[in-house]
Amino acid sequence: MIWHRKHLLDIESLSAEEITLVLDTARAFKAVGERAIKKVPALRGKTVVNLFVEPSTRTRISFELSEQRLSADIINFTAEASSLKKGETLKDTARNLEALNADFIVMRHTAAGAPHFLARVLNASVINAGDGAHEHPTQALVDAFTIREHKGKFAGLNVTILSDILYSRVARSDLWALTKLGATVTLCGPSTLAPRVFEQMGCRVTHDVEEAIADADIINLLRIQHERQRKTMFPSLGEYASLFGLNKARLARAKPDALIMHPGPINRGVEIDSEIADSSRSLILEQVTNGLAVRMAVLFLVNGGKGPQEVAGG
Amino acid sequence: MIWHRKHLLDIESLSAEEITLVLDTARAFKAVGERAIKKVPALRGKTVVNLFVEPSTRTRISFELSEQRLSADIINFTAEASSLKKGETLKDTARNLEALNADFIVMRHTAAGAPHFLARVLNASVINAGDGAHEHPTQALVDAFTIREHKGKFAGLNVTILSDILYSRVARSDLWALTKLGATVTLCGPSTLAPRVFEQMGCRVTHDVEEAIADADIINLLRIQHERQRKTMFPSLGEYASLFGLNKARLARAKPDALIMHPGPINRGVEIDSEIADSSRSLILEQVTNGLAVRMAVLFLVNGGKGPQEVAGG
Amino acid sequence: MIWHRKHLLDIESLSAEEITLVLDTARAFKAVGERAIKKVPALRGKTVVNLFVEPSTRTRISFELSEQRLSADIINFTAEASSLKKGETLKDTARNLEALNADFIVMRHTAAGAPHFLARVLNASVINAGDGAHEHPTQALVDAFTIREHKGKFAGLNVTILSDILYSRVARSDLWALTKLGATVTLCGPSTLAPRVFEQMGCRVTHDVEEAIADADIINLLRIQHERQRKTMFPSLGEYASLFGLNKARLARAKPDALIMHPGPINRGVEIDSEIADSSRSLILEQVTNGLAVRMAVLFLVNGGKGPQEVAGG
Repeated sequence: MIWHRKHLLDIESLSAEEITLVLDTARAFKAVGERAIKKVPALRGKTVVNLFVEPSTRTRISFELSEQRLSADIINFTAEASSLKKGETLKDTARNLEALNADFIVMRHTAAGAPHFLARVLNASVINAGDGAHEHPTQALVDAFTIREHKGKFAGLNVTILSDILYSRVARSDLWALTKLGATVTLCGPSTLAPRVFEQMGCRVTHDVEEAIADADIINLLRIQHERQRKTMFPSLGEYASLFGLNKARLARAKPDALIMHPGPINRGVEIDSEIADSSRSLILEQVTNGLAVRMAVLFLVNGGKGPQEVAGG
Repeated sequence: MIWHRKHLLDIESLSAEEITLVLDTARAFKAVGERAIKKVPALRGKTVVNLFVEPSTRTRISFELSEQRLSADIINFTAEASSLKKGETLKDTARNLEALNADFIVMRHTAAGAPHFLARVLNASVINAGDGAHEHPTQALVDAFTIREHKGKFAGLNVTILSDILYSRVARSDLWALTKLGATVTLCGPSTLAPRVFEQMGCRVTHDVEEAIADADIINLLRIQHERQRKTMFPSLGEYASLFGLNKARLARAKPDALIMHPGPINRGVEIDSEIADSSRSLILEQVTNGLAVRMAVLFLVNGGKGPQEVAGG
Repeated sequence: MIWHRKHLLDIESLSAEEITLVLDTARAFKAVGERAIKKVPALRGKTVVNLFVEPSTRTRISFELSEQRLSADIINFTAEASSLKKGETLKDTARNLEALNADFIVMRHTAAGAPHFLARVLNASVINAGDGAHEHPTQALVDAFTIREHKGKFAGLNVTILSDILYSRVARSDLWALTKLGATVTLCGPSTLAPRVFEQMGCRVTHDVEEAIADADIINLLRIQHERQRKTMFPSLGEYASLFGLNKARLARAKPDALIMHPGPINRGVEIDSEIADSSRSLILEQVTNGLAVRMAVLFLVNGGKGPQEVAGG
């Protein structure tokens, strides 16, 4: 298996083999992050534009540091400080950035499909860093990587995603990745936010949190984006915490080796109790660390890297 | 011809030979931008401060990436996040930045003459990235470079600048550069914005757009900065578009090999029809690409680089 | 003497020998700043996070450039653009940043003790870049370094700190550093802002500016942060200038070789007359330059550097 894609736009169009190749390459880059000198020259003299039309701290920093560790030249372009505010179209903004001899555009946008649109009109490689409620492919790769590091395999594994599913791009990308890799996925949330239509994507949907947790090997809690929630769809934070939050009583009914994930930033006392977040069963900070390895792997592969065997020499 | 200037403050004080030396050096750096590794060590260990007191995205990014490709250490200093807000004077701000052993200050300011003032009080090299309505020398060098790439020469060439001339620093710098290099320049705009006083700078002024376009080899459209326009001087956007916008009917009366330029960001449907902006006669994106080559050349020369023959070894 | 600390949290806990080791190491780095190539590979492949929860331009830029000159990878994280705004705790923010394999966290915070708290919960090295009104250790090291460059020694030296003492972290850190090194320190300011309780820290407190200046070898003026002053504690700016500002008449009564310091940005006409700030007796800009050398030294030492003898080979 050799990587041959120019862009990383979504998980939906990737094969299980391609996902596995990214994970294998990320494994090699994780070792780089543990060295005294956490840097390789793979993207030296290449230019990466981080085009973040929707604000982001966590994902942007993870990409930016990955790019630094690959020795790339980096331009950060945010909507706030941009010609987009002067009425320039997205296409014009992107083509202007590309005209700076940009090799890669890492893009976050409020509109689903924005990176796919750019990939059609640009020569540069486009990496989707989150598009509306559609996909967040690198986060799904981070989650799959983190699961594999701990469980070794996906076949026979039960992964429960517990959150606002309806508006979550991470839920969609995780679902694609994990089902392709052979895991069994259960989605759980309030009925307004975890509609049964998701069953068509090959997963189980339940609104019963005890049932969702009972046989899970991995419980992946996504962030409740309470600053964006629509009142008609969402109970109060207190009500959510009491009905769906992961607390000690609920976790006691899970398998003893069930592990907890969350892409962060966590709302302590809402999705998750503080004690659980800080326990040895929580993989939350490891996901952050793995984010660098996965994003370095993705940039390395779309730059023409063949796979993990090439990283070692870096 | 060897470069001997410490600063680049304006085009007005440059000779045709100096301008040509910059263009020749930019030619060498354009080749660097087309390599797989778009980087040279010319400014390694040197410090560049980008002091942008007036907001800018496009020019700032172009400078920043040029500096990265020259391997400089870079500090971005904007008015928003600055001691200037605490009442510090420009001179104190600049001298404090210089005290960081800064080698170069790239400066944009709302006040005409601000970079000249800094050049007198600092030891660092000062590069003017736009001062009020006075000059924007690197943009004029980009425009001259782009014209030379396509037309090969300036003698006998007719260049029409079509826009709000009165408030445009690009118009002034372009006018200086192109007349020095031997081209014939026509300025065109509404009578309030293209006053006849510019004829004293050695160009033709007309308010008749058909006349201005008729014999032009290059039509350079500058941005109508509608967010800043004063109502008493400027018609509505719709009226400007209908009277001065470059549309298909107007372009049909131009020479068949006339080329279109615009420093961006463009207002589609105001200065220029979308179809023309995206046509093969448009050099707009090439200007962006050339911006890097020209700015690398300027930094290289004020750093003591002799000329293009030195770049190849980089 | 070999450096063995992982963090730099305050001056209070340092010995005179440790402070001297930083100053000696900074001496070696000052020479680096005077080279044509102002860069060493000491932190290559290391990651520094600049976590500035309280806004700062001057100190942040000084750290960032120091880190660039040490060849580190750098992430800038400010409160404005951060998950802290989404309600994340400081501990979670810091642990997430650390999970990016960060080696160093340089931190400014409005709360006294915040860096000490982080140092307890993180594995990364923490450098205090100013915590509330508590300490600003690198500024004190800059001030001590600058004094030593000019006076050669601290024993027998009279240093007067003239300002709002009560709310100043620089005053506290300077006081610790200078008394440990053997200088005699006098604090002076309005009685509301220079309370006698400081005498317990081993210095003289006076509200008589003439007396404070009379025998001073160094007059260190700190910034009156008028944008933050509480009306009940502080006279008007005009009144402060007239009662405590350093003007020519007052300076005439100081020793002829007394030197003037100020960490900037200065309020011309408030703490200090313009003419004095720009005179040859003013070390203000030299403090800025020395800031880089001292911060490079601190990062170098907490990274495991032994001392000045190692820098030369860089």
